[in-house]
Amino acid sequence: MRTNIVTLLTDFGWEDEYVGLMHGVILSINRSARLVDLCHQIPRGDVRRAAWMLAWAVGYFPRGTVHVAVVDPGVGSDRRILCLAHRGHLFLAPDNGLLTLLLERVSRPRLYELRNRAYALEEVSHTFHGRDLFAPAAGHLSKGLPPSRLGPRVGSFVRMKGFHPVQVQPGVFRGQVIHLDRFGNATTNLPQRLLQRLGKKGLVELRVGGRRIRGIRSSYSAVPKGRSLLVLGSRGYLELSVNQGSAAEILRLREGMPVTVASVSK
Amino acid sequence: MRTNIVTLLTDFGWEDEYVGLMHGVILSINRSARLVDLCHQIPRGDVRRAAWMLAWAVGYFPRGTVHVAVVDPGVGSDRRILCLAHRGHLFLAPDNGLLTLLLERVSRPRLYELRNRAYALEEVSHTFHGRDLFAPAAGHLSKGLPPSRLGPRVGSFVRMKGFHPVQVQPGVFRGQVIHLDRFGNATTNLPQRLLQRLGKKGLVELRVGGRRIRGIRSSYSAVPKGRSLLVLGSRGYLELSVNQGSAAEILRLREGMPVTVASVSK
Amino acid sequence: MRTNIVTLLTDFGWEDEYVGLMHGVILSINRSARLVDLCHQIPRGDVRRAAWMLAWAVGYFPRGTVHVAVVDPGVGSDRRILCLAHRGHLFLAPDNGLLTLLLERVSRPRLYELRNRAYALEEVSHTFHGRDLFAPAAGHLSKGLPPSRLGPRVGSFVRMKGFHPVQVQPGVFRGQVIHLDRFGNATTNLPQRLLQRLGKKGLVELRVGGRRIRGIRSSYSAVPKGRSLLVLGSRGYLELSVNQGSAAEILRLREGMPVTVASVSK
Repeated sequence: MRTNIVTLLTDFGWEDEYVGLMHGVILSINRSARLVDLCHQIPRGDVRRAAWMLAWAVGYFPRGTVHVAVVDPGVGSDRRILCLAHRGHLFLAPDNGLLTLLLERVSRPRLYELRNRAYALEEVSHTFHGRDLFAPAAGHLSKGLPPSRLGPRVGSFVRMKGFHPVQVQPGVFRGQVIHLDRFGNATTNLPQRLLQRLGKKGLVELRVGGRRIRGIRSSYSAVPKGRSLLVLGSRGYLELSVNQGSAAEILRLREGMPVTVASVSK
Repeated sequence: MRTNIVTLLTDFGWEDEYVGLMHGVILSINRSARLVDLCHQIPRGDVRRAAWMLAWAVGYFPRGTVHVAVVDPGVGSDRRILCLAHRGHLFLAPDNGLLTLLLERVSRPRLYELRNRAYALEEVSHTFHGRDLFAPAAGHLSKGLPPSRLGPRVGSFVRMKGFHPVQVQPGVFRGQVIHLDRFGNATTNLPQRLLQRLGKKGLVELRVGGRRIRGIRSSYSAVPKGRSLLVLGSRGYLELSVNQGSAAEILRLREGMPVTVASVSK
Repeated sequence: MRTNIVTLLTDFGWEDEYVGLMHGVILSINRSARLVDLCHQIPRGDVRRAAWMLAWAVGYFPRGTVHVAVVDPGVGSDRRILCLAHRGHLFLAPDNGLLTLLLERVSRPRLYELRNRAYALEEVSHTFHGRDLFAPAAGHLSKGLPPSRLGPRVGSFVRMKGFHPVQVQPGVFRGQVIHLDRFGNATTNLPQRLLQRLGKKGLVELRVGGRRIRGIRSSYSAVPKGRSLLVLGSRGYLELSVNQGSAAEILRLREGMPVTVASVSK
């Protein structure tokens, strides 16, 4: 059972008509689709960022949602387009690693290759598969088309590496800053369960660029204005913030910057 | 009677998935909600700007609309979340002054505190109440939940000061530039009724940064290209513009800049 | 028969509440309208850009769609607002050349002037006709109002020139770069049918700023990373791209830059 909700995640930006045309194509096929623009500002070709964002988002949409993710530097080449059916959600994405994090959650994924041109626009350009292949397939899926109709079931897919922190010494984990948001908050790839484990042994300490920040706080205002702090961010990962300021600026953070986490005695 | 329309006003920007997740949460609760993104580019933490924008917008939505405004530097602290019922509209906002301008229009406001966790997500983060508290409450309100179900009625609230112009001499009023738009038009806090009063006595003259601009025009093209002019802006306040140019650039305007208005003989 | 779909194309940007208010006004009139934001980042007052974008977009929306285009430097002057009925689509735009490309496709256009104030907001500002005139008219049209009810049929309209390439020698055409997208791809005004004609005689060669680029490729990845190439873009016009790079930066392209195309022996 589909819900009519279709989410869109791309690196197309808002400057062009690209996103609007995807809406037009989907609505042409399913007049009652409910479109949600999850994000269109993924940095150009940043498949890894899209993989994270999709994984953070899924839980906030009802079963039956169709998720379309088009960060696709290989558009027009022979890279495949995949459709994953998982826990009642459907995902359309290029086979370039974008689904890696979702596929980690599944042991035997129901994965199909989008090949059936009956669910594509009549003319398919070489450079805009978002409009010509992804959007029409999403339109049909949102109306209840079974994903098996899109093409053959496939057993293998491109996996991307390096998403997760690694243990570098007993009790010490190395991760990285994976996202800086508009407010200058830095999301790391250090997940809640790791923090809980470390928290049982002592105070969680994050080291980043020569600094040490201790203790996970429950709100920005737990420290004075302008001071840095650690919080368990809304994405389920450790975040580095500054109360009413930008951690990115004040701590000179960059995406991809390594961080280390351990527990220290209180 | 609700209309299913829910407006969103935040400082979240479009770079992240934050706005998309609010859509997801609201649609999970009310599949037929109609979401309108009023603005998500409020400067970070600028509660005053959000207060103005909400006041400018309300009249263009039908009764029964639910308005959600999340500019919330105190997220995670003990600041309250309020729900105001006013003339058939409902407003959800943090208790930080954001509702000041709307509350000026009401003598005995129907104001509730959002406390009932039955209308929140199961897990509530410390840093993203927009998704975890505001959005689910809005979803339920848009389905017809009476605001009294959200929590207790409250009698007091945080008021913000300094919105309005002051009389500095007989017939002379000091206000300020409160908004510069994408086109470089400057909106002041000098309202239509004050201009009408001044206009009866003579020609309206605005002084800003050493310049004087006289007479309210009825369109940009009433002056030559590149010339500055005064218009009664679409928000109901005096605006300073340049025909086919940017008043912000040409007159070196900044938000918060003081202006003075008076009437002079024609 | 209307479809309830209303597209919006403006130069209003996302920084202000302007677009959200147009949504509010349309939904106030037609609760079931489906709104699509085609693009709101048209450079300020760039009527020509809006004309192109509308022409590129129309084919991706179903018959019965209402398209509202507000790039309107003459707002508040006596410029007219037009409604064009064409192949089941309706278009609302100022009479400033914005409809030129669409009107080229029609021999005897059904064109009306928007004058009937029964389909306007009660108060009409001098500076925001998008909200006060275009949006309410679109709301009514999307509910099935015949365009003839908006005002008198008109026979003439403002045409804009210079959209199309010109032949400068036998087999040699001069056009220009008309659009740079977020990825740095450059769209020219050299259409598919001209390229097909040239392609029959030899290899298509584009000259731009002292460089020559030969051969139309079928995907970005047909050339090594960082190399420039020609593709038939998704808009139906010749595009100049760089595989995984920005043609705009690498080839120092600007909008309006002249290009020449011809066929050379293979």
